[in-house]
Amino acid sequence: MTLLLHLADFNERRWADGFAAALPGRKVVTRADSYDPDEVEYIFIWKPKPDAFEGLHKLKAILSLGAGVDALLRNPSRPRDVPIARFMDEDLTQRMSDYVVSQVTMHQRLMTRFKRDQAAKQWRQLYPAPAWDATVGIMGLGALGLDAVRHLKVFGYKLRGWSRTAKEVNGVDVFTGPEQLEAFLSGTDILVNLLPLTAETQGILNYETFSKLKRGGIDNEGPVVINAARGGHQREADIVRALNDGTLKAASLDVFEVEPLPQDSPLWEMDNVYITPHIAAASSERTGVAYFSKVIKDHEAGLPLPNMIDFGRGY
Amino acid sequence: MTLLLHLADFNERRWADGFAAALPGRKVVTRADSYDPDEVEYIFIWKPKPDAFEGLHKLKAILSLGAGVDALLRNPSRPRDVPIARFMDEDLTQRMSDYVVSQVTMHQRLMTRFKRDQAAKQWRQLYPAPAWDATVGIMGLGALGLDAVRHLKVFGYKLRGWSRTAKEVNGVDVFTGPEQLEAFLSGTDILVNLLPLTAETQGILNYETFSKLKRGGIDNEGPVVINAARGGHQREADIVRALNDGTLKAASLDVFEVEPLPQDSPLWEMDNVYITPHIAAASSERTGVAYFSKVIKDHEAGLPLPNMIDFGRGY
Repeated sequence: MTLLLHLADFNERRWADGFAAALPGRKVVTRADSYDPDEVEYIFIWKPKPDAFEGLHKLKAILSLGAGVDALLRNPSRPRDVPIARFMDEDLTQRMSDYVVSQVTMHQRLMTRFKRDQAAKQWRQLYPAPAWDATVGIMGLGALGLDAVRHLKVFGYKLRGWSRTAKEVNGVDVFTGPEQLEAFLSGTDILVNLLPLTAETQGILNYETFSKLKRGGIDNEGPVVINAARGGHQREADIVRALNDGTLKAASLDVFEVEPLPQDSPLWEMDNVYITPHIAAASSERTGVAYFSKVIKDHEAGLPLPNMIDFGRGY
Repeated sequence: MTLLLHLADFNERRWADGFAAALPGRKVVTRADSYDPDEVEYIFIWKPKPDAFEGLHKLKAILSLGAGVDALLRNPSRPRDVPIARFMDEDLTQRMSDYVVSQVTMHQRLMTRFKRDQAAKQWRQLYPAPAWDATVGIMGLGALGLDAVRHLKVFGYKLRGWSRTAKEVNGVDVFTGPEQLEAFLSGTDILVNLLPLTAETQGILNYETFSKLKRGGIDNEGPVVINAARGGHQREADIVRALNDGTLKAASLDVFEVEPLPQDSPLWEMDNVYITPHIAAASSERTGVAYFSKVIKDHEAGLPLPNMIDFGRGY
């Protein structure tokens, strides 16, 4: 059995050494190594090239380091019948929750207002309202959304969620499907996107969506949007327009329609936009190797893959 | 019985109306009203003027809206034998924890680094380490410190605390007294000050303290300091020096040696300093009135005052 690593942005050699140590008796190779394609039973990927799967006719599973698999599903060389298991562990969810809570609390604590006052050397006192006066609306109630809920709950934020299918989440008002989107938005001060990118969610962060958010919350510094999911969810021209006309008061964006964000994007220079370069969450080498070497061993022993992609719903 | 309100920065009339409604049968006055000083049994204060207590010979208790009473204890007209009860409820502690967690997570998520990259239109990926790789050291384990612990714990931060007296706090490494300060600092990435201001803690946030903090933590963007207690705890010249020579990487300051912060302070223009105008936490009118009207009723009925100041230790 050969495990092939195809990791666009990462140090493939270090990961390969990690897997080789964790999987004695298996061959672990990178694209730079020589190997027999017919021996490759598992491929471990991050941002696969279009031809990533060419010549791999004996694949048993595709292992995705990324939690979002929209690009992978569109990959032209991907064999349509090979199951995909994606990474999801506490290291990844913790980092995402760290990001989400840092941005939520930053906005609730009126960072943009106080940053502008500091730039103007102005001492203008305003006591931000406590967390329980703000409503955080989370789009997407999968593993990442539920972990964000767990973290935000301890602050007492009012929590609501929006998901494709009906769910019961303790302490969260759950809205379901397109017909309840407007009701969900109308009570949301801080909108957090953690949806998978599918045909239905493409471009969902648009001007119409923003215009339906609650007005006047978080000490009149809301609404704000936080996108930690996919650039394809957002219409950046709409974000700029909404920020300029006050429909949005601020935005935290970890993802973009085109990455890296082009130099001529007006977002770079907006002082109420908080840009991070798609780093909200990734797994560490240590946890990634531990997770997927166990997945491989279990799968070889006949156990099912965890966190398998449902090709029908697209995530 | 008369309740006198002496609230320097607040709308005294609104608070007086609130208390009058909550305390039927008692006279509630502000300094602008006419009243008989010998009828004043309770005074409710925020930033009292030097002569605040003159002529009040029948005081039964001083009720402090502020959690910090250092200035009140130094007030020259304060009758030395009248007990002081200070405000401490979940509204105040929640706001302080909102502030503390927003600043801790902001620094752990490398805000300064990404803000600088944004200003330079640079896309430089770095995946911040998860919360459990960072150690937050909290100075002061009173009600505010313990509430911050409760909020930070859910992220998995490594937590340590420093307090005047030995304490057992679940999940927190507690260090005690001056002799354990250095050991406490040496493992701290993010230092949070929530101490009361006393002769012992005056100026404790100085260059020597900063130089003992852990080096190289939070992805080499630490150590950082967060001061949400009193300006008297910090030496601002030392903060500037430590930030300039890299002994500190960033600072979040809600309080200052002189407030409002003077226009010529170099802190205003430092892009790794996060200034807020002493607004981390205050009680709302609603909760403040509810809290102290109950205190007064209970005290009139012979019950002890809550959260009484210990004149010996000074808080």
